[in-house]
Amino acid sequence: MEPFRVTILGSGSALPTKDNFHASQVLELRGRRYMIDCGEGTQIKMGQYKVNVSRLNNIFISHLHSDHCIGLAGLISTMAMLGRSEPLSIYAYKDLKNILLPTLDYFTDDDSFEVIFHDINPKKKEIVYEDKALTVSTIPLKHRVPTCGFLFEERQGERHLIKQMIEAFDIPIRELKAIKQGADFVDKDGFVVKNERLTTPADVPRRYAYISDTLYTESIIPQIEGVDCLFHEATFLEQDHRRAKETLHSTAIQAAQIAKKAKVKKLVIGHYSARYRQHKPFLDEARSVFENTVLAEDGLIFEL
Amino acid sequence: MEPFRVTILGSGSALPTKDNFHASQVLELRGRRYMIDCGEGTQIKMGQYKVNVSRLNNIFISHLHSDHCIGLAGLISTMAMLGRSEPLSIYAYKDLKNILLPTLDYFTDDDSFEVIFHDINPKKKEIVYEDKALTVSTIPLKHRVPTCGFLFEERQGERHLIKQMIEAFDIPIRELKAIKQGADFVDKDGFVVKNERLTTPADVPRRYAYISDTLYTESIIPQIEGVDCLFHEATFLEQDHRRAKETLHSTAIQAAQIAKKAKVKKLVIGHYSARYRQHKPFLDEARSVFENTVLAEDGLIFEL
Repeated sequence: MEPFRVTILGSGSALPTKDNFHASQVLELRGRRYMIDCGEGTQIKMGQYKVNVSRLNNIFISHLHSDHCIGLAGLISTMAMLGRSEPLSIYAYKDLKNILLPTLDYFTDDDSFEVIFHDINPKKKEIVYEDKALTVSTIPLKHRVPTCGFLFEERQGERHLIKQMIEAFDIPIRELKAIKQGADFVDKDGFVVKNERLTTPADVPRRYAYISDTLYTESIIPQIEGVDCLFHEATFLEQDHRRAKETLHSTAIQAAQIAKKAKVKKLVIGHYSARYRQHKPFLDEARSVFENTVLAEDGLIFEL
Repeated sequence: MEPFRVTILGSGSALPTKDNFHASQVLELRGRRYMIDCGEGTQIKMGQYKVNVSRLNNIFISHLHSDHCIGLAGLISTMAMLGRSEPLSIYAYKDLKNILLPTLDYFTDDDSFEVIFHDINPKKKEIVYEDKALTVSTIPLKHRVPTCGFLFEERQGERHLIKQMIEAFDIPIRELKAIKQGADFVDKDGFVVKNERLTTPADVPRRYAYISDTLYTESIIPQIEGVDCLFHEATFLEQDHRRAKETLHSTAIQAAQIAKKAKVKKLVIGHYSARYRQHKPFLDEARSVFENTVLAEDGLIFEL
C-alpha cells in the first residue's frame, strides 16, 4: 500500500510562536502533494521539514483568516523564483483572489507560472477537486467567517494481480488492466478464469478529514464517520470553554467528542491558542473522551 | 549613556531558511522601537527574541522585494488583534500601499488602528523621519528595483548636570533645562557661573547605517563615513562575485571594502544567499579587508 502521509507544518493559531507556526499541513499520496491552509512561514517550514515544493499543485484554504492563508504570497513568490512553470490551483472562498492578486502581480514576473483561483462555497458539501489519487470535498463549519473543512478520500485502487496465477495461465499483458479492474480472463479456447483466482482485493481507500476553525458542531459527523484520521481544531482547554464558544472555536474535549461520535480511527488535535505554554493538558483532556488522540506539533509526520 | 540597541530578526535573503529568516531588524533608543524591513516571519521572530510590538511606531522598508516587506501583513494583523490603538507609520516606496491595503483592509477591522503610508523616494538623500531621539535619512542604492538604505542618527543629547555643583550653587529646578542645553547660571545678585562648571559634555551622538540590497557602490561613502556601525548586505562570497554583479548584490569583501573606505567603527554583514550552508567564510573574507566585522545571525543583539 502506498503511503498516505500527512506533515504538520504549523500547529498554532492566530498568534504564531517559534514552536507553533500558523496553520498548514501537507498531504502526500501517490507522488502528489496537497496543501491545506498556508499561514505565515509555511515556506520556511517546508524547507525545514524537507517537504519539496515540486508536485504541490493544489492548495485548499479553509477560510480567510490571516493565520490560515497569509503565507501564500511568500510561498508563491518563492515558487516563482525557483522557476516553477506548472500552474498552481488554489481552492478558497471567493475573496482570496482580490486580497492576493495585488501582491502576486507585484512580486512575481508576468511570465511566471499561472495561479488559478477556484472559488469554493464553504456552506455547501461538495466535491471541489478530484484526480486519480483522491477526491476532496468541503465540510461546512461554524466560524466567524465562511469556513469549511476538507475531506480527502482516496480513490478505490485496482485489485492486486497474483503474479504466479497470471504466469500459470500465460495471460497477455494487454489483458492485465481489465483484470486489475475486476474482469475475468477468457482464453482463446473460451476457457474462463474467474477474477477472484487471479487477483486479491484492492486496498481499502483511506480517508483524512481536516476540521479547521469551528464551534463544536455535530453536523459534520455524517461526513467524517469512520475516517482513518480526523484532524480537529482544539484551540482551547476546558477551563476556557466560554472563550471557545465566544470566538467560535472548539476545546480539546469537544474535538474528542466529535471523534468519538463519528467513530473515527484516530484523532489529531492542534491549532492551540498561544496562551497555553504546555500542550500536554490538551492531550489529557482529549484522551479522557477519545483514547486514540495525538497532539499535532510543527514537524509531526504520520501516515494513514 | 542610554543603550542604542540593534536586534537582527532576520539575516537571510530571498529564500528564507529555518535559521536565517527574511530581512528585518529592530532598533531601540530612548524607549522607542524602529523596524527596518519586515520579511516573512518577522512577527514570529519578535516573539522569539522578546522584542515587544508596543512602542514600535515606525517601520522603514528599503525596497519592495518580498523578502523585505512580506511580513508586514502578518505583523499588522497581529497588532490589530492585540488591540493596538496608536497609529503605525510605514516609510516605503510608493507602491507599497497598493500591494498591502487590500490585505490589511480584509484582515483588520474597520475600527482598528491607522496605518499611515509615507512615500519615500529611494533616489534622493533626505531626512524622512525625525523625533526627539533621532533622525532617519535615505541612502540611495543600486538594485533591481528602487532601493535605499537608511542612516539613523541620534540627536545631540543634553549636557550632563554635575549634581554637586547644582546643589552647591543652590540652583532652582526651573533653571536646569536651560543649563542642560548649555546656558550659564546667573544668580539673583548677578553672579555668573559658567556652564562648564555645572555640566559635563553631552554624549557623542551615535549613528547606524543600514545598507540593504545593493551592487557595490562607493556613492554611499560620504553619507556613512565614520558611523558607529554599518550593516551592509553580503549576499555572496567572492567565488560568486559574477552572480553578485548580475543580481545587483554585494560580496562580503565588497561590504568590507565599503566599511574600510568609509572608516566605520564596526561592520555587520548579513543577507546571505541560502546557497551557503556555512557563514564562517563570509566572516573570513570580510575580515581579510576590514577586521572589526561580525556576522549577522537571527537573534543577534548588539549595542552601539
